[in-house]
Amino acid sequence: MARVSQEHLDARRRQILDGAAICFARNGFHATSMQDVLKEADLSAGAVYRYFRGKEELIGAIVAEVLGSVRAAFEEAALQSPPQPPDELVTSVLGRTLAARESLLVDGRPAFPRLVIQVWTETLRNDELAALLREGYGSVRAAWSKIVEGYQEAGMMRTDVEPDHVARTMIAAVLGFLAQQSLFGPAPVEVLRDGLRALMSMPDDQSAG
Amino acid sequence: MARVSQEHLDARRRQILDGAAICFARNGFHATSMQDVLKEADLSAGAVYRYFRGKEELIGAIVAEVLGSVRAAFEEAALQSPPQPPDELVTSVLGRTLAARESLLVDGRPAFPRLVIQVWTETLRNDELAALLREGYGSVRAAWSKIVEGYQEAGMMRTDVEPDHVARTMIAAVLGFLAQQSLFGPAPVEVLRDGLRALMSMPDDQSAG
Repeated sequence: MARVSQEHLDARRRQILDGAAICFARNGFHATSMQDVLKEADLSAGAVYRYFRGKEELIGAIVAEVLGSVRAAFEEAALQSPPQPPDELVTSVLGRTLAARESLLVDGRPAFPRLVIQVWTETLRNDELAALLREGYGSVRAAWSKIVEGYQEAGMMRTDVEPDHVARTMIAAVLGFLAQQSLFGPAPVEVLRDGLRALMSMPDDQSAG
Repeated sequence: MARVSQEHLDARRRQILDGAAICFARNGFHATSMQDVLKEADLSAGAVYRYFRGKEELIGAIVAEVLGSVRAAFEEAALQSPPQPPDELVTSVLGRTLAARESLLVDGRPAFPRLVIQVWTETLRNDELAALLREGYGSVRAAWSKIVEGYQEAGMMRTDVEPDHVARTMIAAVLGFLAQQSLFGPAPVEVLRDGLRALMSMPDDQSAG
């Protein structure tokens, strides 16, 4: 048996995950078969099953990869004092997340926002996937809460608001922005940056009082 | 044939739409049959088909009803000078939208956030529904842009940002907040209000400079 390099193994794994992501984005997890994934990745069953035992492992790996990199980015941001302002931080993390997947297309449009929506829908009937997503979002939410505490400690944000509420709002803005892309088409992350920046320029009832 | 009051007709229509909304929220549009709707609404085929010719008309009526009331609320808000601040405005419109549907439950939890996600997924393969949603969101987005112009004219918001970018960001925050509820469970709208309020208390690069 020929020996294969780690580089080759990684590239093959990438090829499978990208093929699966495109299938899941196109038709959803439920309606995708392992045959579809083999065809999209242009690999034999033997080549794919050596890496992943089935659809559950594939979606798990895809979700874990996305949430892992997003979590790492926000955990790193939480270590800075003060943390980067939210308009810049969101633009940078979301921009990198989208850029890393810009070669994945469905009908000539970015597959990633579509994949996100398909994963949400699947969590409504798939408890295992729901638990995975809940855990991953939980980590991102915790990292965002630390960032918010950093804003508050640096005097950049009012302190009478629960950090977790701000964390949820920031995550909501990003998720909703992704959801919109499947309706309105792709939009640069600067749209969201501008929106957050404009909100930050408004007087709140505290500063007005 | 007995004559029936308008009140009775309206109540019957409501019963059908609520039954359909619960079915679509539970299993998605694609996997729901008209039989499922009849069973959920506890009505005969004759009673239902008198009002709606099929699933397409049902989902169309549900989406139109939600977007129509949201649009009307934001168009009314746009007429005020200056418009209500975004944290209060979003809380009030979203609160009313959720309260009007709080009796609709799937597995004992509010059906509405789940319905929203199911509708998004269905738009990925249903061009007619996608067009309907795009038009409805387009109206809400236009109304929000007018509100943003109102903030800018009143000196409440920096004027170097496209109103449409702020409109998209506000809609994103609400959509993402709804999406989160299917993962993290129901949350009071005050969570989103607090998050927006906290953002408004931050210095933007303009006020810092």
